[in-house]
Amino acid sequence: MIFPFTAIVGQEEMKTGLILNVIDPSIGGILIMGEKGTAKSTAVRALADLLPEMEVVKECPFNCNPEDVLCSRCRERLRSEGPLPREKKKMRVVELPLGVTEDRLVGTLDIEYALKKGEKRFEPGILARANRNFLYVDEVNLLEDHIVDLLLDSAAMGVNTVEREGVSFTHPSKFILVGTMNPEEGDLRPQLLDRFGLCVQVTSIQDKALRMEILRRKGDFDSNPSQFVKIWGAEQKALSQKIMSAKGKLNTIKVTEDLLEKIVHITLSLSLDGHRADIVIMKSARAISALRGKMFIDSEDIRGAAQLSLRHRLKRFPFEEIGKESEKVQAVLSRIG
Amino acid sequence: MIFPFTAIVGQEEMKTGLILNVIDPSIGGILIMGEKGTAKSTAVRALADLLPEMEVVKECPFNCNPEDVLCSRCRERLRSEGPLPREKKKMRVVELPLGVTEDRLVGTLDIEYALKKGEKRFEPGILARANRNFLYVDEVNLLEDHIVDLLLDSAAMGVNTVEREGVSFTHPSKFILVGTMNPEEGDLRPQLLDRFGLCVQVTSIQDKALRMEILRRKGDFDSNPSQFVKIWGAEQKALSQKIMSAKGKLNTIKVTEDLLEKIVHITLSLSLDGHRADIVIMKSARAISALRGKMFIDSEDIRGAAQLSLRHRLKRFPFEEIGKESEKVQAVLSRIG
Amino acid sequence: MIFPFTAIVGQEEMKTGLILNVIDPSIGGILIMGEKGTAKSTAVRALADLLPEMEVVKECPFNCNPEDVLCSRCRERLRSEGPLPREKKKMRVVELPLGVTEDRLVGTLDIEYALKKGEKRFEPGILARANRNFLYVDEVNLLEDHIVDLLLDSAAMGVNTVEREGVSFTHPSKFILVGTMNPEEGDLRPQLLDRFGLCVQVTSIQDKALRMEILRRKGDFDSNPSQFVKIWGAEQKALSQKIMSAKGKLNTIKVTEDLLEKIVHITLSLSLDGHRADIVIMKSARAISALRGKMFIDSEDIRGAAQLSLRHRLKRFPFEEIGKESEKVQAVLSRIG
Amino acid sequence: MIFPFTAIVGQEEMKTGLILNVIDPSIGGILIMGEKGTAKSTAVRALADLLPEMEVVKECPFNCNPEDVLCSRCRERLRSEGPLPREKKKMRVVELPLGVTEDRLVGTLDIEYALKKGEKRFEPGILARANRNFLYVDEVNLLEDHIVDLLLDSAAMGVNTVEREGVSFTHPSKFILVGTMNPEEGDLRPQLLDRFGLCVQVTSIQDKALRMEILRRKGDFDSNPSQFVKIWGAEQKALSQKIMSAKGKLNTIKVTEDLLEKIVHITLSLSLDGHRADIVIMKSARAISALRGKMFIDSEDIRGAAQLSLRHRLKRFPFEEIGKESEKVQAVLSRIG
Amino acid sequence: MIFPFTAIVGQEEMKTGLILNVIDPSIGGILIMGEKGTAKSTAVRALADLLPEMEVVKECPFNCNPEDVLCSRCRERLRSEGPLPREKKKMRVVELPLGVTEDRLVGTLDIEYALKKGEKRFEPGILARANRNFLYVDEVNLLEDHIVDLLLDSAAMGVNTVEREGVSFTHPSKFILVGTMNPEEGDLRPQLLDRFGLCVQVTSIQDKALRMEILRRKGDFDSNPSQFVKIWGAEQKALSQKIMSAKGKLNTIKVTEDLLEKIVHITLSLSLDGHRADIVIMKSARAISALRGKMFIDSEDIRGAAQLSLRHRLKRFPFEEIGKESEKVQAVLSRIG
Amino acid sequence: MIFPFTAIVGQEEMKTGLILNVIDPSIGGILIMGEKGTAKSTAVRALADLLPEMEVVKECPFNCNPEDVLCSRCRERLRSEGPLPREKKKMRVVELPLGVTEDRLVGTLDIEYALKKGEKRFEPGILARANRNFLYVDEVNLLEDHIVDLLLDSAAMGVNTVEREGVSFTHPSKFILVGTMNPEEGDLRPQLLDRFGLCVQVTSIQDKALRMEILRRKGDFDSNPSQFVKIWGAEQKALSQKIMSAKGKLNTIKVTEDLLEKIVHITLSLSLDGHRADIVIMKSARAISALRGKMFIDSEDIRGAAQLSLRHRLKRFPFEEIGKESEKVQAVLSRIG
Repeated sequence: MIFPFTAIVGQEEMKTGLILNVIDPSIGGILIMGEKGTAKSTAVRALADLLPEMEVVKECPFNCNPEDVLCSRCRERLRSEGPLPREKKKMRVVELPLGVTEDRLVGTLDIEYALKKGEKRFEPGILARANRNFLYVDEVNLLEDHIVDLLLDSAAMGVNTVEREGVSFTHPSKFILVGTMNPEEGDLRPQLLDRFGLCVQVTSIQDKALRMEILRRKGDFDSNPSQFVKIWGAEQKALSQKIMSAKGKLNTIKVTEDLLEKIVHITLSLSLDGHRADIVIMKSARAISALRGKMFIDSEDIRGAAQLSLRHRLKRFPFEEIGKESEKVQAVLSRIG
Repeated sequence: MIFPFTAIVGQEEMKTGLILNVIDPSIGGILIMGEKGTAKSTAVRALADLLPEMEVVKECPFNCNPEDVLCSRCRERLRSEGPLPREKKKMRVVELPLGVTEDRLVGTLDIEYALKKGEKRFEPGILARANRNFLYVDEVNLLEDHIVDLLLDSAAMGVNTVEREGVSFTHPSKFILVGTMNPEEGDLRPQLLDRFGLCVQVTSIQDKALRMEILRRKGDFDSNPSQFVKIWGAEQKALSQKIMSAKGKLNTIKVTEDLLEKIVHITLSLSLDGHRADIVIMKSARAISALRGKMFIDSEDIRGAAQLSLRHRLKRFPFEEIGKESEKVQAVLSRIG
Repeated sequence: MIFPFTAIVGQEEMKTGLILNVIDPSIGGILIMGEKGTAKSTAVRALADLLPEMEVVKECPFNCNPEDVLCSRCRERLRSEGPLPREKKKMRVVELPLGVTEDRLVGTLDIEYALKKGEKRFEPGILARANRNFLYVDEVNLLEDHIVDLLLDSAAMGVNTVEREGVSFTHPSKFILVGTMNPEEGDLRPQLLDRFGLCVQVTSIQDKALRMEILRRKGDFDSNPSQFVKIWGAEQKALSQKIMSAKGKLNTIKVTEDLLEKIVHITLSLSLDGHRADIVIMKSARAISALRGKMFIDSEDIRGAAQLSLRHRLKRFPFEEIGKESEKVQAVLSRIG
Repeated sequence: MIFPFTAIVGQEEMKTGLILNVIDPSIGGILIMGEKGTAKSTAVRALADLLPEMEVVKECPFNCNPEDVLCSRCRERLRSEGPLPREKKKMRVVELPLGVTEDRLVGTLDIEYALKKGEKRFEPGILARANRNFLYVDEVNLLEDHIVDLLLDSAAMGVNTVEREGVSFTHPSKFILVGTMNPEEGDLRPQLLDRFGLCVQVTSIQDKALRMEILRRKGDFDSNPSQFVKIWGAEQKALSQKIMSAKGKLNTIKVTEDLLEKIVHITLSLSLDGHRADIVIMKSARAISALRGKMFIDSEDIRGAAQLSLRHRLKRFPFEEIGKESEKVQAVLSRIG
Repeated sequence: MIFPFTAIVGQEEMKTGLILNVIDPSIGGILIMGEKGTAKSTAVRALADLLPEMEVVKECPFNCNPEDVLCSRCRERLRSEGPLPREKKKMRVVELPLGVTEDRLVGTLDIEYALKKGEKRFEPGILARANRNFLYVDEVNLLEDHIVDLLLDSAAMGVNTVEREGVSFTHPSKFILVGTMNPEEGDLRPQLLDRFGLCVQVTSIQDKALRMEILRRKGDFDSNPSQFVKIWGAEQKALSQKIMSAKGKLNTIKVTEDLLEKIVHITLSLSLDGHRADIVIMKSARAISALRGKMFIDSEDIRGAAQLSLRHRLKRFPFEEIGKESEKVQAVLSRIG
Repeated sequence: MIFPFTAIVGQEEMKTGLILNVIDPSIGGILIMGEKGTAKSTAVRALADLLPEMEVVKECPFNCNPEDVLCSRCRERLRSEGPLPREKKKMRVVELPLGVTEDRLVGTLDIEYALKKGEKRFEPGILARANRNFLYVDEVNLLEDHIVDLLLDSAAMGVNTVEREGVSFTHPSKFILVGTMNPEEGDLRPQLLDRFGLCVQVTSIQDKALRMEILRRKGDFDSNPSQFVKIWGAEQKALSQKIMSAKGKLNTIKVTEDLLEKIVHITLSLSLDGHRADIVIMKSARAISALRGKMFIDSEDIRGAAQLSLRHRLKRFPFEEIGKESEKVQAVLSRIG
């Protein structure tokens, strides 16, 4: 039994960042920086548990969405068997083990099958399991560079193509990448940082009452999980519906010229490299707006989106104080009407 | 023949820490820091030997508890054969070899079986053998990081899920993790330290009479082990019953608001990262209380629990003397009514 | 659906460098240095998408050009079956994974086939897939040296010969090598730099209006890709025809004595090592001229070619300012009538 | 033909240390520190050669003692075939190669047998061959840590249990561990040093007459080995009998309270870590006493035992002179009545 | 189609060094040090192309010379089938890949053949392909030491003997070793440098007219290769005949006492290690003389030979200027009558 | 055809050291330190070529001496077939490749045979080929430590025992170990240096006439090898007979008390570690004496032996000049009557 997402005390930024990615997965994942023991992994599992089941092609190891691009196997099935049967499945959190190899990540040939049947067959990897799920990478800064690269490429493309010994296999690989890192234990190269859509920082809660509340809820949950889950049922359901509704109406929210100008003003003022920040702010602002149930994006949405999109993209000047950076961001954001 | 747990001279903190984990395995294991030659491994083996046999599903390589979550194999057996046969088994101490690989730890496919029978079958790993047993990791700070990670994840989840080449296998993996380390030989990252429930320090005994007693008992045991074991029989039985009784009534002990406040007061005063310390203190205090045969938790239980829960979670300030840290802890604890 | 090449805002130098390589692949590829998030990979994919289909031998895994040197397999087929059947194929962007092995790059023996059929057969590698396509190497400076070496050798020879266990296989391997690197993350040895034909630098765009335009186009494309592609259809077609026409008439453009003198004047003035720069400037100037629809090469073409050919071949003097180097180049180029 | 143990000139401490381990193998081996070219390996081989043959189960690859705990194979044989046949075997010196792997050390599955017969069978490792023999590890400080660890664990347990792919095999593994090291070539961690029972230091002999004697004996032996061995026959026989008799009566020697007090006095005075030194001194003193043919242990025996047991367990204080340590030991020992 | 050797502009020293090795392969190869982009690999390929075909045993994978020592296979064929059939073959340039393994270099057993036919058979390696050809090693200083060692040993012996699992195979391995290195990218150990017969340095050409000529010829060749080759046909043929004639009369040229004295005078004056320089100068002077069509060796030949033989054998004194070394050599050489 | 040993100019110390090892292989090999290009490998090959053929058991892969200890295979053959057939064989020089593995060195199981015949069979390694031959190790200081260790152990034991997967095989492994090293390229540990019997230093010859003689002989040999070998035939035969005669009468030469005293005087005066130097001096003096055709050992023999035995065993004092060491040796040796 899983601790309810809505019963998690505090950590609003992290929770929002995760939800925005559910609403618009093209935002490109989230990097959670922070202290040990701050419920990072609990929150992701809880959010996956909160969401309603999704429709997948029956028995497809890639959780193909019957309404979207299909994997090679499903495409063939569709050709030969007609309309594909469907089933419902919960969203999952797939964990990426430290020390994972490329073959395990992207999949490879099924050697055993080849030896026995004399036919080459694709053996799905972790990216296959991750399709339409969360892919959780603990301490992403400890992964080898070429694995991080593969991950981010797949996340960006939404598709995984594997070619091995003359066999080519393609499957959708649209996952929400959640990376965590403790900045005290080594860094990610700026090249890689930039490719995470959002970035939040979590710290432990200092408020005494909230802290007792955490303990109280954990104690209550541990002694009687099913009762605890029942109590929180209504709140869970409400949030779930709010998220699904935001997801549904996302495309109807318009992006105005004025909005674009504000975004570009922000990123130019902060002299960021490249254009990813612009795009992520635009998409996040729209998702925030949808979550707030509105039909247009206002300055508050932009400010909220910028908060989550800028932290990991600011240049670090060795001798400048970190506080100043943050002041600069605040100054820029506050000037947005 | 094994040296009786109750005949071990001194080292009360280590013995208590081990017993608390037996009473409530969700406390999360214990890290024993200390000098060489201080009976660390002897104590764990002796405690396993002291405890009564447990009921397991007959011939299950995972020691499934017939009353708890079952492994994939037992679940299938239950479905096809009805109620599972049972047998009794002693608790064991499973040792994790230095240099263990991921496959050996979590299990893997049985290649040989696959080649011969054409069927994929799960080959249990060390985590399978460890279920419901002690998992003893000597010099845990010399293990590779990704192995420690896997260990601590499994310990936290209580379940080991292995997916290899399309086969997915799940089995309970609820073990009491006992790690030892000599702080003079390299450190564990704070990230990992924090995930051990308790931490105790052992040193050799300086009292002359006790030291002679150790030697005398070792001499007596070595010359005539069976007689020695007989002499200590009654004490062994008494302790065993005390532990089992504490385990039985654990859930009936209530956690009060006042208790929560005291715990949060401690952890906030010491500015610890995250919230794990709070939870471990709460659980350990309850287990101490149960061991003392009481129905409620008092300040002494909290102080005892804090002693075992804080040592490895304090921040280390390079220029501050270690003694001061300890004073600070004592000061905080003494102020708890 | 792919973002149209002509809809990419700015980055003219990179776009020109890519196009020149399409017009004359013997220019020898292009190295793109620059910031993260500047659409490098998008541009290459878009250019491949823009170009018309090419004619290949049907079912040849090497995309053999029926009018050019054939692979060993096609040569044999031609001998035994007569004229080879043809089909049309889009140009592709083949990506080189970080951590690629030599065997995967150049191909190797098909062990499985050998075991089952008792015949040795060549298993095509990445160089096989790359023939007549783009080979895109992200962060080329992070590749192992012997892989970079193999790549550049193949690019230079236009042919890949693999000899393994008595089997020798040859196939054309004429690809356009596109490497990217971030100069802040380690260097390429001058030996290797020199073997890239061209080198361009990309930075993010600072002009506010252009920047909004980028965002606007990205937004439009994301909301309705097929409509966006339709809008840009005419521009796409025009550029495609311009490139194919330049490619067709390349050999008719004459290289005069005067041109040679100007080129040698440039490279001698800058004391470059070796003679590759001379040759690349000559070829690029011709391609530029062809793209501009002219029949002769003028000074402007040489200057343009030199801009793209010199950047990575200048010697670096540790204590001289980088700006000065660039001034020197400008001074030399400006003196060319 | 082997050089007679009794013909080895000098090196009394090393010879005694080896003999004590033969009398009571639970002393836990010996670490020989010293210069190159000092007959360390010769002495061990010579001692093995001197001892009478031992009784083993016929054809058991583990040299099972028919009177002691049996290996899995012998236990099964006993069950199915009744009383086990016996044979006589000389004690051997098994050498541990540098760079040995874990599988070679502890044994593994016999893959070939499995493939051919479809049955899993245990393939004995070096620990199997070492049972009841000497295990000689030259330059133990150059071994990898996890191998030293495995060695010392087996030595401590007297049993080797191997679990691989569902097969579990147990065999006695009671060997006398002899390690050598040259302290100038790297150290052993104190953790590991402490687990060798005894430690002696050997240096080359400076006395001219003795030195000539060494050369003379070596010369005589080399020119006519069989005559040389015959000449030393009586001395060899006498020592062999003395050792076997001491071994026989070891358990009849009593350990008094007074003895314990003296031992604890020594170890407390020197503030050693842990309690292993106490136990080793007790056992060695008893073995010395047995070798001297006495029924009780006197102060001289304790002093002798302490000499051999303390050297590697003293703490090293960087700025204190090594001579002082030794003085302190002498002072402590001399005060023992 | 290959660029004609005689059309290569400049680089006379390199061209001479290569030709001398063709005339007398026992000179021992050539090391080419120098800048990137200086046609090193082009020159070797062009020289191989220039030379007439050679006579080899038909279908021998080692290009056995029917008039010389044969490989094991040819020897057996000769025994069983009588006189061996012959065919003509062009000399080739075999490239040694960076990262080559020992097995690939010297050859190994043909495992597949063994498994299928139950017979051990030798699988030729790169040294087999290299027999009677050029072996080109780009950036020889980046090879692993043991590979360079193997190469130089084979080059010195002229024979490659492989013994694997009881099978022994011998084949002639007489190749002209051509190594290149860029001295800015790490060094070769003097041990290895000394074993290259000759050493030349190449730099790019600074003369404007020559430089234009290079570009003009490259342009002409690229636009119409077959016509270009036809134009240079006569010069090619003349050089080819001159080389073959020198090769033919090499043994008839006498080495006089006076010549020996001059050589020893040179090497003693420069205090070189060992005696290889003496021998190489003697052989190269003879080959130069043969190339010049003379019957005796004069001082000019010695000076020419010394130029090519000494550069890599001079001791390097860290604080002495490199120019001085060269002056010393010139001074010594100029004093030779 | 091989250059005659007696035609090698100079390098008397190296030649003597090699010959002494042929006379008495128990001296324990020779380490040759010195410059490149000084005919080290040529000398060993030439000496092997000079010696008469030896008698071996026919078809034994270990060159078993029918009069000495036999290999496991020959012992079995002897048991089953009676007296073993014999054949004559030349002594060989076996080279140890850099990067050799343990399995290749000591031999291993013949996997292929096992798979096909279902029987385990020993696959001889390099030590098998080396039996009764020279084992030449170029640049011994670049070998991995555990390989050097294995080599020296085998050299010391004269026997190689391999135990793999239950199969045990023993064969004689009596080779003359010849190691070379260039002291400028890293050191051997003193532990290993000490285990080479002798050590000589070689430098290139500075005498002009000798140097010309080297060149003249090399020239003569290269132009007409068979004539050259014929000219040196008589000298070769004489040396060969002298060596074989010395070998034959070695055991008849007596070692007197006076001799022992002188040897011990030398080694004590130089405070060498251990006793190996004493033994090697004794054996070498006897071999020198035998070579000189005498029946007793005189002081000159001892001095000669000491020269060869001490160089690598002297302690190195960092701040003392190397010259002084040598003076000290000379002083000690000169005082020997």
